[in-house]
Formats: sequence, structure tokens, C-alpha cells
Amino acid sequence: MDGTRGTGSSTGRRRLVLVACVFVVLPALVGGLVLWYQVSAHGTAAPGHRIVPGADMAARLLMAAAVVLGASHAAGRLAVLLGQPPVIGEICAGILLGPSLLGRAAPQLWARLFPEGILPMLDGLAQLGLVFFMFKVGRDLSSVRLRALGGRTLLVSLASLAVPFAGGAVAAVALADGHAGPAGPVAFTVFLGCALGITAFPVLARILSELGLSHTAVGRTSLLAAAIGDAGAWLLLATAVAAAGAAGSSGPGIALMVAGTTVAAVLLGPLRRALRRALSRRYGNNGEEGAAGLPVPLLACAVCGCAAFTSAVGLHAAIGAFLAGAVLPAGSGPVSSAADRLGSFSAGILMPFFFLGFGLSVDLSALSPDSRTVVTGSVLLALAVLTKLLGPGLCAWVTGMSRGDALKLGVLLNARGLTELVVLGIGLQAGLIDRQMFTVLTAVTLTTTILPAPVLRLMDRRAKRAPSGASPPGAPARGAPEEQAPQPSGGPLAPEER
Amino acid sequence: MDGTRGTGSSTGRRRLVLVACVFVVLPALVGGLVLWYQVSAHGTAAPGHRIVPGADMAARLLMAAAVVLGASHAAGRLAVLLGQPPVIGEICAGILLGPSLLGRAAPQLWARLFPEGILPMLDGLAQLGLVFFMFKVGRDLSSVRLRALGGRTLLVSLASLAVPFAGGAVAAVALADGHAGPAGPVAFTVFLGCALGITAFPVLARILSELGLSHTAVGRTSLLAAAIGDAGAWLLLATAVAAAGAAGSSGPGIALMVAGTTVAAVLLGPLRRALRRALSRRYGNNGEEGAAGLPVPLLACAVCGCAAFTSAVGLHAAIGAFLAGAVLPAGSGPVSSAADRLGSFSAGILMPFFFLGFGLSVDLSALSPDSRTVVTGSVLLALAVLTKLLGPGLCAWVTGMSRGDALKLGVLLNARGLTELVVLGIGLQAGLIDRQMFTVLTAVTLTTTILPAPVLRLMDRRAKRAPSGASPPGAPARGAPEEQAPQPSGGPLAPEER
Repeated sequence: MDGTRGTGSSTGRRRLVLVACVFVVLPALVGGLVLWYQVSAHGTAAPGHRIVPGADMAARLLMAAAVVLGASHAAGRLAVLLGQPPVIGEICAGILLGPSLLGRAAPQLWARLFPEGILPMLDGLAQLGLVFFMFKVGRDLSSVRLRALGGRTLLVSLASLAVPFAGGAVAAVALADGHAGPAGPVAFTVFLGCALGITAFPVLARILSELGLSHTAVGRTSLLAAAIGDAGAWLLLATAVAAAGAAGSSGPGIALMVAGTTVAAVLLGPLRRALRRALSRRYGNNGEEGAAGLPVPLLACAVCGCAAFTSAVGLHAAIGAFLAGAVLPAGSGPVSSAADRLGSFSAGILMPFFFLGFGLSVDLSALSPDSRTVVTGSVLLALAVLTKLLGPGLCAWVTGMSRGDALKLGVLLNARGLTELVVLGIGLQAGLIDRQMFTVLTAVTLTTTILPAPVLRLMDRRAKRAPSGASPPGAPARGAPEEQAPQPSGGPLAPEER
Repeated sequence: MDGTRGTGSSTGRRRLVLVACVFVVLPALVGGLVLWYQVSAHGTAAPGHRIVPGADMAARLLMAAAVVLGASHAAGRLAVLLGQPPVIGEICAGILLGPSLLGRAAPQLWARLFPEGILPMLDGLAQLGLVFFMFKVGRDLSSVRLRALGGRTLLVSLASLAVPFAGGAVAAVALADGHAGPAGPVAFTVFLGCALGITAFPVLARILSELGLSHTAVGRTSLLAAAIGDAGAWLLLATAVAAAGAAGSSGPGIALMVAGTTVAAVLLGPLRRALRRALSRRYGNNGEEGAAGLPVPLLACAVCGCAAFTSAVGLHAAIGAFLAGAVLPAGSGPVSSAADRLGSFSAGILMPFFFLGFGLSVDLSALSPDSRTVVTGSVLLALAVLTKLLGPGLCAWVTGMSRGDALKLGVLLNARGLTELVVLGIGLQAGLIDRQMFTVLTAVTLTTTILPAPVLRLMDRRAKRAPSGASPPGAPARGAPEEQAPQPSGGPLAPEER
């Protein structure tokens, strides 16, 4: 009761009851009577009716989404408990939910959980996740300040790409006959070189920050080496994919693609500056009071558009999203807040579906019985680890880094992480490798990504036990002045990092 | 060059060149030689190879996504320029991109843009968007403080549901023969009553804040009336859907469903408190320093799980998501930051796909030629507007609100917005209405959602011209003390509101 009237309370109450009768009870009676009439005339419902099939598919999709998101989150927490980056757990959850493991252990449950009809829906979510993730990778790499590059860091970076590439190419000669995809042995050779050369920049940044190495010479050199090495590897991969696509359609040759990519790389500087000016004028800088920044949907639209464009041209969609991230102004400009929100959402909600899609592609049955497969996997694993140790690691030692730090650098650059999985997915989709090689390389990737964190912890512990030996972590190497190395702005150390 | 050594500059330089030769030039040469060998042995690529079809579908999906996101954003900006909430523009963009308009104007372009293969992918995005949106609606409604309910507001709220329901039920008697879906006339009657009774809480909140009415008696009463009316309408709708589903499977009757819903509603209080305690213990309150709050993926997992559960039980997935939003602790608890992020992402990135899916269902050709359809539409439009004016509006006037404010209240409660579209989608999917009635009701919804803002601006302008007449906006009605009305906490006035 609220004293609406100010008149006597009983009058007001009587009035309210009257109003309630007229406006609530009477209409409710009318509605009820009509319903009663309908029920008596027609029965409760048409007998043969069933809910349309779309509703059932929606329920299946939501159930699958709940399972995928829940499993991914739980596995991520478990990985953190085991001292690993969460992304390792999330990838494993995707593979566990795939046909190789859950599908074999409980085929009926698996078929109920992921029926044929919802696979395209899950694939759509995975595609968006991949594109937004690659956008973030491009942004992270482009935020590295190349002007701070010294002679040693440049050498280490190039060695980090060239030595594994040579190793992969040599291995490809032996493996091409059995494992090259329909795109042929040349594309396979380029691909294998790229695959061994990749270092996952975001996983690396996360490991560095967890071990407290971000601001040491080793940490800075490894970040810069990863950035330059990855950029080179993506360039090579783009060439391989374009070559594979062009071979089928007899269209433009590799030379044209390389020329185009080079022009794009050169344009990157002026284009970025122009975009930054235009966006700042329109949306203001984030530092300014009350500036809204670029709206997230518009950014998502631009990223999807770039990805669709490169995909239509014959490159993979991931490369377009990567370029969009590299071209858009980095740092705390008008794009950064929208990019951060897009990245964190994509990492949390969409990427689990990408991992699931990855798990759907992995065929672990290709691994188990064949002794030749085991040999191939071991050789590739050894090559992957050794080329990174003997390439950038040895190179850093020769140019003056302490032995302990150089070893750390080689171990760090082995973290191939999610970026490598994206590369493998592209290779499988573009027909550069067969499914068996895809599965073998997935195992190699997981192994080399899991190893760095525990190995470095072990090295730290040993260094502490024998303090007279290797230089303590964080100290500059052998009296060399600390290099001006990159401080990736934006969020590469944020908790969502992968 | 960085002075790594501290020895003579020329020695250092020579050393660097030597290192570069060994670690960069040599591996690059090896890689190049291997490639050259492969090219000379095999040619550039296998001749018959084409990129696998999956890559093409991904490109199509990304292109469609870019178009949908871009069109939605542009239409939203346009709506704001025209003085409307952005959601109106976004809905119209979805209908424009559908087969009725773009599909008829440029059939070839439309078929290229939305090929058969990507429709399930777009549908998956739309489903997730719908579920997260309904979660937010449930949260917004549950944040209304019902303890502040006065006698008048309760009456107005009930009238806001009962009078339109009676009007819809009466109209259903005449319309059931031609327009009832396969679920039969009883479900159709309930549905039409619900459809006329809905008020979109978020759109209402946005209109109020734009016109500066949020803290007036009219604004507060209308928000509370919308919250209670919507809760009742959802309850009725759930019953209708359950009845439609149960009719086919001869499973549990309506009575069971109603009983279950009632138990759930009663449990809402204790369940919410228990959840709040548990979540606060695990994730801390957001007010606390350093508390992380609930992770977004976990929240998304819970929402999808609830939606999948209700969908499997026979209710629509949207109702489960709504309940999840209503049950989870509101306010600034451990859930709020995750819920806000989920809501804003969903509104920006996923909802445009829901609008597109809506546009794909609308069949404007059902509207054009038939004079009977025009009459049906006009009658339903008149009923929709008049029952809200004569129900809550008149009720408020009789119980002591000034005539101008009561009229405003009736106009405001006409904003049916996106919530109504969700209801219509559920009705079509569950077989409660046919496609023609769906399209007619969509037109009615859009009209009644577009009208309130300009009508209220007009009323304001007239009131200012004749200041002696109606009471000025914001003044309490006829000397009545301002009611303790709800202040929806959380984000109902945030810019993403729909």
C-alpha cells in the first residue's frame, strides 16, 4: 500500500480493490474463459505435432558448447596446477574430446554429444576464434620495437629461423615420399621448414613472465627472435600455401605472390601511420578523456573482411587476420581497447571450439602401431629441439652470451605452442601434409611446448645450488651492456595469454 | 651493432660477419639447395591439386560475417541518428539481409553471400547470441528490487500483463483457424496473449535514460511493470511451449510443467542466496582488492548448460538461459564482471547473427498482397497499442497518476523490442504460430518499438509549450510521494543496451 491519495486509508484500500477487479481480475477472467472455450472446442493440442527439428539441433549445440567450454576451462586450471600455461591444458581438452580418444572410449556418448548436424556450427565458432586469435598474434608481433634491434639479436633471430628451416628442409627430402600432401613435395619442404622454425610468441611471453625472465637479456632477446622468426616463417608459409593453391588453378605463380607479400610488408609502415591518423581523428586516443575508441563490432568486421579477402585471393584466412593485426595501430591508440576485448573474448569463448576442431582433425590411430612413425616422430622431435638449441642458442653463445643464458635461450625458443598448431591446421587444410604427418607434428609441438617451463625451472634450481658456476638469472651476460630489447606493449603478459 | 665484446670494433665486426655466415647464410643456402633439388626433381606442385573445400567455406563464412557485422553496425549508427535505439537499426539490418529483401533484389549476390553450406555456421552463432542475450535479460529483471513494490505499481504491473493477455486471447479466437501453428489453437491463444503482453525491459530502460525519465515516478513504475509483466509472460510462454512439446510426445502434462515452474520460482530465493555464498567464497566479491571474479568461460559454460537442460526437458533454450540469469547473484557480486563482459561481447559480435537468422525467417511476401493480412495486422497493432494504454495507463490514472504521466506510461510499455522478437522466434520454432502470423507480429513489434521515443518527445514538446497543463516531466504525480521504485543495478543503462 502506498498512500497515493492522501485520503482515508480505508477509502484508498476499497478503491484499490475496485481497480484491481476491473484491470486485473476481469481481464484474467476473460483470458481464462477464452482458453477454456478453446480447450473444450479443440482439445489441448493437435495430436500429431512435434517440435521442429531446429530446436533439437539448438539443444545439441548448447549441450556440446557447455561440455567444450567446461572441459577446456577445467583442463586449463589443471595445466596451471602442473606448472604449465593454461593453453596446453585447453589444447589437450580439445584432443581428448576428439574422435581418437573420447570417440574411441565411448562411441555412443561421443555420437550423442557431437552429432553430424552440429559439426558445421562448431566449425563456424572455431573459424571465428582462429581469425581473432591470429589478429592478436599480428598485433603482439607488430608491437615489438624493431628499432631497438642490435647486431647480436638480429643474428640470433635470423638463426632462429634459418637453422630450423634448413633442418626441416633436409628432413623433408627423406619424408616427402610418404607424407607430402596433394600439394606436392616442394610445398611440403617449405612447410616442414616453417613448422620447425615457429616459436609461439604469446606462450613464450607467458613463460618468461612466470619465471621472472621478462626483463633479462635472455628474455628480451628471445622475444625479439621469436617475433622476427615468426614473421619470416609466416611469409614463407604464405608462399607455400599460395603455391599450393596456384598449382591447381594454373593462376599467378609463386613469384607474383612473393612480390605482393613484399610490397605489403613495405607498405606496412606508411599504411599503419595513415590508419593511425585516420582512426585517431575519428575515435580519439584511448588516453583522452571520454574517448570511446573503435567499436568492437567494427573491428571484428574489419578483421573478418581482411581474412575473407586473403582467403579469396588464395592465402589462408589466418594470414589476412594476422596482417590486419600487424597493420592496425598498436600501443594505446584508438584500437587497443577494442582489440583487447575482442582478444579476451575470443580466447575465453571461441578458442575452445578451435581446439575441439583441432581434436576432430587429429588421428591418433596413425601414431600407435607403426614403428616407422615412431622413428619419424623421434627424428622430427630431435630436429626441432636441436636446431633451436644449435641455431639461436649456439649463435648467442658465440656472440658473447654466457653459456647458461644461451642454453636458456635455445630452450625458450622451443615453445611452439598454439601458433604452431595453427600452422599445422593450415598445412593440413591446404593439402601440404597428410593426416599422419599432421598428427606426428602435433605430438612434437605439444612436447616442445610442455618442456621449456620445467626445464628452465630445473636449470634455475641447479644454478642456485652451484652459485659459482653459471651467471645468476637476470644478470647481464659476461659484462655486456643490456641490449635495448623490446617491451611488447598491449597485453602479451595478461592472464588470457596463449 | 652492439658493443657485445668490448674489444676492438673491427675485430667484433669481423666476428659478427663470420657468425652470420655460419648461422644464417649457410643454413639458408642449405634450405635453398634442398628446395632447388625438389623443384628440379618434382616440378613446383602436383598438377591435379585443389585446395580442400573446407577452406572455401571458411572464406564464405568470414565474408558473410564481415557483411553482417558491418551492416549491423552501420544500421545501428543510422538508428541513433534518427533518434531510435541502435537495436532497431540492427534488427532492420538483419531483415534487409534476409531473403525477402536482399534475396529478392539481388538473388545472385544473396546466394553468393549466404550459400547453403554456411547457414548452419551462422545459425550456431545466432543460437549462442540468443542464449547469452536471454541470460542478460534474466539478470536485468532479477536486479529489480521487488521489496520496493507499492500497491499502485503492483496493480499497474498486473494490468500490464492481464489486459493485453485478454485482448490477445480474444483476438486469437478469430485468428486461430487461419494462423495457428501445428501445435493447435490453445497454444496459439496463450502465445498471442503473451506476445501482446511483453515489454522489452532493456529497450525501455534505454529510452528512459535517453529522455531523462529514469528517475521519475513514470520511469520507475514502467520499469517495475515491465519486469513483472515480462516474468509473467515468460511463465505463460513456457507453459505454452511445454504444452506444445508434450502434445507430441504424450509425456508429462501441462500441470506438471506449471508445478515445476512454480517450485523453481519459489526456490529462486534460497537457491540464489546459496549460490551467492558459494561463489563469493570461491571467487571473492568484485569489491574486494584483487578478487578475480568468476571466469567468463565458466559462466558461458553454465549458461549453455542451463539452456541445453531446459531445451532437452521440452522448454525452449532461451528460457533456461533466462532462468540462469535470474538465479545467479545480481548486483556487484562475483558474477557481475563476467556477466557484463559476456553480455557486451554477445551484444556486439553474436547478436547481429541472431538478427540475420531472424531476417532469414521473416517472409515479407506473406504481407504484401492479401487484404485480409493487412486487416489482421492493423487489428493486432491497434490491440497491442490500446491494451497497453487502456490497461496499465488507465489503471495508473485511476490510482492517482496525472493524465500526462499515465499516458506516458502506456506509451512506454509499448516498447516491445528485441525481447518480443525472441518470443516470436520461439513461437515459430515451437510450432505455435505459422510463418504469416510470425511476419505480421514482427511488423507490429517493430512499429510499437519505434513509436515510443518520438511520441514521448512530441508530448514533452507540447507540455513545454503549455506549461500550465500537464505536470512537467519528472515531477511526482499529483502530490503523491515518489514511490520507492527499482534502480536496476548492473548495466541496464549501458550503451550496449537493447
